[in-house]
Amino acid sequence: MQQITEYIAQNKERFINELIELLKIPSVSADPAFTHDVLHTAEAVKTALEQAGCDTVEIHDTKGFPIVYGEKTIDPKLPTILVYGHYDVQPADPINLWNSPPFDPVVKATEDHPEGAIFARGSCDDKGQMYMHVKALEFMVKTDQLPCNVKFMIEGEEEVGSKNLATYVAANKEKLANDIILISDTGIIANDVPSITTGLRGLSYVEVEVTGPNRDVHSGLYGGAIANPINILAKMIAALHDENNHVTIPGFYDKVEELSAEERAEMAKAPFSLEAYQKTLDIESVFGEKGYTTNERNAIRPTLDVNGIWGGYIGEGAKTVIASKAYAKISMRLVPHQDWEEITTLFTDYFLSLAPKGVRVKVIPHHGGQGYVTPIDHLSYKAAAKAYETTFGKKPIPQRSGGSIP
Amino acid sequence: MQQITEYIAQNKERFINELIELLKIPSVSADPAFTHDVLHTAEAVKTALEQAGCDTVEIHDTKGFPIVYGEKTIDPKLPTILVYGHYDVQPADPINLWNSPPFDPVVKATEDHPEGAIFARGSCDDKGQMYMHVKALEFMVKTDQLPCNVKFMIEGEEEVGSKNLATYVAANKEKLANDIILISDTGIIANDVPSITTGLRGLSYVEVEVTGPNRDVHSGLYGGAIANPINILAKMIAALHDENNHVTIPGFYDKVEELSAEERAEMAKAPFSLEAYQKTLDIESVFGEKGYTTNERNAIRPTLDVNGIWGGYIGEGAKTVIASKAYAKISMRLVPHQDWEEITTLFTDYFLSLAPKGVRVKVIPHHGGQGYVTPIDHLSYKAAAKAYETTFGKKPIPQRSGGSIP
Repeated sequence: MQQITEYIAQNKERFINELIELLKIPSVSADPAFTHDVLHTAEAVKTALEQAGCDTVEIHDTKGFPIVYGEKTIDPKLPTILVYGHYDVQPADPINLWNSPPFDPVVKATEDHPEGAIFARGSCDDKGQMYMHVKALEFMVKTDQLPCNVKFMIEGEEEVGSKNLATYVAANKEKLANDIILISDTGIIANDVPSITTGLRGLSYVEVEVTGPNRDVHSGLYGGAIANPINILAKMIAALHDENNHVTIPGFYDKVEELSAEERAEMAKAPFSLEAYQKTLDIESVFGEKGYTTNERNAIRPTLDVNGIWGGYIGEGAKTVIASKAYAKISMRLVPHQDWEEITTLFTDYFLSLAPKGVRVKVIPHHGGQGYVTPIDHLSYKAAAKAYETTFGKKPIPQRSGGSIP
Repeated sequence: MQQITEYIAQNKERFINELIELLKIPSVSADPAFTHDVLHTAEAVKTALEQAGCDTVEIHDTKGFPIVYGEKTIDPKLPTILVYGHYDVQPADPINLWNSPPFDPVVKATEDHPEGAIFARGSCDDKGQMYMHVKALEFMVKTDQLPCNVKFMIEGEEEVGSKNLATYVAANKEKLANDIILISDTGIIANDVPSITTGLRGLSYVEVEVTGPNRDVHSGLYGGAIANPINILAKMIAALHDENNHVTIPGFYDKVEELSAEERAEMAKAPFSLEAYQKTLDIESVFGEKGYTTNERNAIRPTLDVNGIWGGYIGEGAKTVIASKAYAKISMRLVPHQDWEEITTLFTDYFLSLAPKGVRVKVIPHHGGQGYVTPIDHLSYKAAAKAYETTFGKKPIPQRSGGSIP
């Protein structure tokens, strides 16, 4: 039976050229100017899945950009893997920071990539990874080595919040039914340190609005005598963390999974330089929940961050106004077992309770998602670890990502 | 000798028509589209001062809009009154809230003004008051009753922060030398309750900037592990007031003038309806420094208010970013003896001390001004009070304004 290394050697040039063609299409989902290109990319993905050997490939419309669905069933009794990926990319701005045009891919060897790599928008998020799975299927189909059923669900709105994915998934439960979901849209600890992302944090995202007087008023005539919505909002936000940077929302940690000392010791083995981390961000010190390391804080612990705040006069110079309203956008990253809807309710109740008389407060939930962790004794983890070990010659390190995908 | 009531009766129609012509010129200093009109208004004020009987009238250029200076000296040995006023007006937006065009004055009787009043932008801030002083001079000059020397300093930038006034005053100390400054650019307790503004609060206005990581970062990957500038800014602002809403800046109250129980009792006599105040602003409760009434809080006590705040994502929907920077504009209204430059320094030192490691903080002073109070046993107060009593048939109430003019 033909080996994969041999197959790659024979087809490498074609693989690279095909991927380069895909990378050339500027599928920027955030910018309506690229709508045609995003749709064109969905068509290109459909063609790629067909050529790789899928039996069925369909473009499913949503309220936004379509989802490309592909399927190769060899035996309904065998397990099914669902591959998730996305064909849209982030905007390329600021253009002047690119060394080569973002949609004109170049292959270059660099210090980080001595054997060469493709530089283009989307090459590593997520067209490159998605294409790798398509080519893996091609190899297994062509050489008759596919050991299970495979489904693909490739969306076009990951970079704009996957707004229509939940509806699509709910409406197509049977079609998408699977045993394992495979996602290659996360990071790696380092080029020479293979790692498998086993967890993603969940999310609750809310917007808050604090209203004081019914109109903007003069800070001289009213200053000090009425509740200033910006000062109050600052007090309320400040009250969301205690002096040890624990989140103060009652019940927030009730369902948080506590890792054992062994599990934390295992996590701590991942190579990590605090000095390099601080240097990259140009900060003098990290900051966060007492009793946890940086890697724990952004992986196994839930967080609460203000992502945006605004109110009053924000132009040049000075204007002595007391604003009628102040606003903030607040997100909480959640860990397994924390239910995002429950957390949103806990947040809302607590936040409203922080408001003094003299202001009115609204909390508007935006969206959310559940956190998830794959147990590392699961068959799927073991299979992925074996594949990594074969390729890298090293056992991969399991790691949890702080993000929430899709 | 001719009485003023008789003079007014003879000239009323001319007075009103002259003022209406002045009000027609849209002297909006904030909007460059009206530059020509602002300059035209300065010329009109010059003409009015000349016609009223000033010996010398000059238009003095500044880096912004000119200051109109007028002078009537009858005897250098007599006291001199300097009248301050401004000929610029606020922008008229939002236009649709006007019942008649802002620069097309109409005389109308209303519930508040049963004898009729002029409705136009600037009629009561400050063209109307300024014109009243010009006509008072006219009467006294024409009837040979002027008992002192009079100077006028009428500026065109009050509504945009009087940016060039300090430089002008410093450069013209001798020309402007006077015994009493008369300003009619404040409020009155009620139409039937005459009051004299005896105090103005000072001001220190600063902008603050909190920097965390050197770029906006992903709140999933970094959330909880580094200092979020918005969260930190909220904490720092929250720390500027204690649980009794006292300002916590060390030394902030050191030089604050404490009023005696008698003085506070006198202040409390001014008619004030807390219910009406709250209803007008549509607030359930007032809010402020413990131990002081609403009228004390916005007159004899210093304050600290955030006038603007911004950072991170403030568009529609959700973006899970941790911003690199967060900003706020903060003003402190000051009372007599608090030096604005000293307070700015105290604020800066304290604010910087509140920053945790992991953020960098900048404080940029914008501008300031000293607070001032006229003693009510001063000759000038007595003269003004007598004039009010003659006109209204009631003794005026001395009151302090929370604002800062010019």
